[in-house]
Amino acid sequence: MLYLGVDLGGTNIKVALVDAQGNILQEASRPTNLPRPAESVCDDIAELCRQLAAGRSDVGGIGVGCPGTVDDRSGRVLYSNNLAWADFAMSDYLQAATGLPVRLANDANAAALGEALAGCAKGADSAVILTLGTGVGGGVVLGGKLLTGYTGAASEPGHMVICDTPDAPLCTCGRRGDLESYASATALIRMTREAMQEYPGSTLCQLATPETVEGRTVFDARDAGDPVAQAVIDRYIHHLAVGVANLINIFFPEVIGLSGGVANQGEALLAPLRAEVDPLVFGAAYADKKTRLVACTLGYRAGVIGAALLAAQD
Amino acid sequence: MLYLGVDLGGTNIKVALVDAQGNILQEASRPTNLPRPAESVCDDIAELCRQLAAGRSDVGGIGVGCPGTVDDRSGRVLYSNNLAWADFAMSDYLQAATGLPVRLANDANAAALGEALAGCAKGADSAVILTLGTGVGGGVVLGGKLLTGYTGAASEPGHMVICDTPDAPLCTCGRRGDLESYASATALIRMTREAMQEYPGSTLCQLATPETVEGRTVFDARDAGDPVAQAVIDRYIHHLAVGVANLINIFFPEVIGLSGGVANQGEALLAPLRAEVDPLVFGAAYADKKTRLVACTLGYRAGVIGAALLAAQD
Repeated sequence: MLYLGVDLGGTNIKVALVDAQGNILQEASRPTNLPRPAESVCDDIAELCRQLAAGRSDVGGIGVGCPGTVDDRSGRVLYSNNLAWADFAMSDYLQAATGLPVRLANDANAAALGEALAGCAKGADSAVILTLGTGVGGGVVLGGKLLTGYTGAASEPGHMVICDTPDAPLCTCGRRGDLESYASATALIRMTREAMQEYPGSTLCQLATPETVEGRTVFDARDAGDPVAQAVIDRYIHHLAVGVANLINIFFPEVIGLSGGVANQGEALLAPLRAEVDPLVFGAAYADKKTRLVACTLGYRAGVIGAALLAAQD
Repeated sequence: MLYLGVDLGGTNIKVALVDAQGNILQEASRPTNLPRPAESVCDDIAELCRQLAAGRSDVGGIGVGCPGTVDDRSGRVLYSNNLAWADFAMSDYLQAATGLPVRLANDANAAALGEALAGCAKGADSAVILTLGTGVGGGVVLGGKLLTGYTGAASEPGHMVICDTPDAPLCTCGRRGDLESYASATALIRMTREAMQEYPGSTLCQLATPETVEGRTVFDARDAGDPVAQAVIDRYIHHLAVGVANLINIFFPEVIGLSGGVANQGEALLAPLRAEVDPLVFGAAYADKKTRLVACTLGYRAGVIGAALLAAQD
């Protein structure tokens, strides 16, 4: 059987035809063209799905990763800030338009399922995936299934508070000092800018201005020997390690996979992160196994692959 | 079918004969009499089990809740500080001594399973149980099964850091500012003592000395109108709320159940806790369901009941 995976973003609708092992056979996309009504976007999704399924009798269903708060059981988008949708019965609408069964997930959860089943945690019995991007997204996959809980919403490890102090950075969720406020690419850029302001003679300030600084800037400056950049990286890795160690102590997963812009640093991030995480793991001295901390492998295709594999779980 | 549940503590060995619904039919116990070798303690456990099973052909197995780090899959106690045991194949030993299949779990996990299946979360599809005692123990039950992860060890939500600052209280696990260091009964007593030292004229100081203060002291003083006690309670509940909200954002469980000495305060603890937790839950404004925050109901029998129900899962 084959499955259609949809990654619905604020900019593009991406659809792929995927086999049960997570291999992509064919892809299609078009601009999301927001703002427009949910039905209109879904008509485009349905058309892309029909294109990819044309002439085939072996397409078993459609999986959709959608930004925002979704209820995976009822197939409703409860609220999506990116799409400006509220309470839309997306699965029912797409099912009526395509004649195929539809499964819905939060987009970060769909990508996490892709990495867990066909990417960095393939073959593992449990995985926590963290995306270090504008925010810290994530998903938890246990025994091959997404953890969505009672509400049907995604697990939100990025909104775990790790430093509950009045002067901790404020997250868009309204809490201070959560993992997202310390470990997102946005947070790394904020910390880099603060260091640039404090050390105007640093290499950092030769490589970028406060306007052009990116997540990678601080790594580039460190590679050029800048101790100010090294200090920012150390601080960033420390916060990330606290969050990762918390998640290990809660889930003891086989794999923790990191994706998103910052994770592109690979071992430059992962090696010091492992060293900082190890002593924070509860009972590590007596355990004969430990969580593998790795980089994700599917890149931006994790979303369509995971969405398709969600459809395959019906 | 009936099952034997064993709650092995540093002071007593408790065994109960339990039906598949979690009802206790018969109980027996004897002192643990530490220090002594693991085999000797297990011989006593086996004898208690034989007593309760005598003349019955409907006993399907034994479940054991054991303090320390256990591997639930291999049935080994990896390390138990309380018992001073290391790397003991407890399931194999007990199975040979009794002729019954044996399932092993961490003691806090066994109690959590009891509360999830037969106590405060009976009928719920997911539950996180926190025990506010000497430490903060806990267990996570998803779809009726304990979350034990890749290592086979218990979930340890008490060792989630919620305030990563250099001056946060130090936990016995070696980390500063974890939930245990802020929300255990030990932490509440520490905070009460600090308040007594700072406010020697307070009602608190009339009700107890630094030596006699207990977890309930601060609640008694508050009931007598002491604003110093109220401030301690507010601070304690704030920290607990941060941890509880983190666990909701990670698991979105149907139920969070609190047990242990501090939870005996019931609604005096739960009502203000719910009020503090609610605004910290991610996406609460759009969710049509919310986690129920309740007190556990099985008391000290949760351990034997949960251990027996673990055996019933084979």
